[in-house]
Amino acid sequence: MRIGILGGTGPAGRGLAVRLAAAGDEVVLGSRDAERAASEAAGLVEAWPDHTLAISGASNGECAAAELIVMATPWNGAVATVKPLADSLAGKVVVSMANALVKEGREFLALMPPRGSVAATLQAELPTSLVSASFHHLPASEMEKLTTPMSADVLVCSDHPEASEATVALVDRIDGLRGIDAGSLSQAAAIEAFTAVLITVNIRHKVHAAVQLAGFSEV
Amino acid sequence: MRIGILGGTGPAGRGLAVRLAAAGDEVVLGSRDAERAASEAAGLVEAWPDHTLAISGASNGECAAAELIVMATPWNGAVATVKPLADSLAGKVVVSMANALVKEGREFLALMPPRGSVAATLQAELPTSLVSASFHHLPASEMEKLTTPMSADVLVCSDHPEASEATVALVDRIDGLRGIDAGSLSQAAAIEAFTAVLITVNIRHKVHAAVQLAGFSEV
Repeated sequence: MRIGILGGTGPAGRGLAVRLAAAGDEVVLGSRDAERAASEAAGLVEAWPDHTLAISGASNGECAAAELIVMATPWNGAVATVKPLADSLAGKVVVSMANALVKEGREFLALMPPRGSVAATLQAELPTSLVSASFHHLPASEMEKLTTPMSADVLVCSDHPEASEATVALVDRIDGLRGIDAGSLSQAAAIEAFTAVLITVNIRHKVHAAVQLAGFSEV
Repeated sequence: MRIGILGGTGPAGRGLAVRLAAAGDEVVLGSRDAERAASEAAGLVEAWPDHTLAISGASNGECAAAELIVMATPWNGAVATVKPLADSLAGKVVVSMANALVKEGREFLALMPPRGSVAATLQAELPTSLVSASFHHLPASEMEKLTTPMSADVLVCSDHPEASEATVALVDRIDGLRGIDAGSLSQAAAIEAFTAVLITVNIRHKVHAAVQLAGFSEV
């Protein structure tokens, strides 16, 4: 599948791009600066010569032409990024992975966006897109290292069943990750905010912890 | 240790009482109705004849005389419960385990208490107590069944290092649980809210999922 990652040159976008490309997807990193996107994409491909990674770079506008879109800009740039792209994104699944966080001393704290979550804010901005929220709790730095095995449960929520399904399937394509449908987009507020707790645990205990749901196994 | 569980006759309190008593602690279930507390306590002791469980029942007032206090009332009764007990609770560790949740269809949604979390609301109400937040993500129904093995990481946060330490130690005494210091009481908002996501996952997928932090191991 051809996947566009808006704001794909940041740590979250790069990490996801590498894992999706390793799973066989074609990934377009989007950026306000198409040249920077192209150079970041080339850097990722070169970094893993043992893999054939189909990662290219483009402007956010071209990136938005992909089949499925991931929003990986920082939370405070999310609305400004999607606003001019609303037409390209209409009818498509748009996966929101940003968290509204602020650093305070040795902790990260969750902020409450006006609609409760970044994802709900995007859905309000893109009423004809199928917004889902996912990929919040994964340590970006580890994602980018293809040599680090991942083992995590990845929560997915959306108001659109087809977006939840497509996003769970997207997560499942990545080695070691399991997508879990966690309900409506109302859950995004708590899912995003919980990222602050995980990062704080990681800082305090010098770990790269990811979430697993014990006792969760579907036949 | 002698532990008082305010509102201990509810599912959360009963589950925790059984596990702590099985770990060798002396537990006092508190309730507005001391007789009901005594009868619930007797019921728990009788339910597990192979264990010697030191669980008794008392009024919330007597319960508050214990060394360490757990607040297990429903979230909307928390302030009214502790207000008259402030003097007994002064200087003590008070562990808040309530979550402000509301059911909507087949989901639970997190509400935002005026101070961000139930725990922060209790700390504001009890300025001379050492409030911590913990035990939010454990399935109450499973806690009460001593025959069900538990395997979960339990997040703890507080503004008082000694309360975090005492609460992590309390969690660690329960077989299968590991306490993890997750920072200041500011984290309670996200920890409490995340309970809504877990319960929703449990409902949707018919599981009793608990949180484990993969990649977290301290030497």
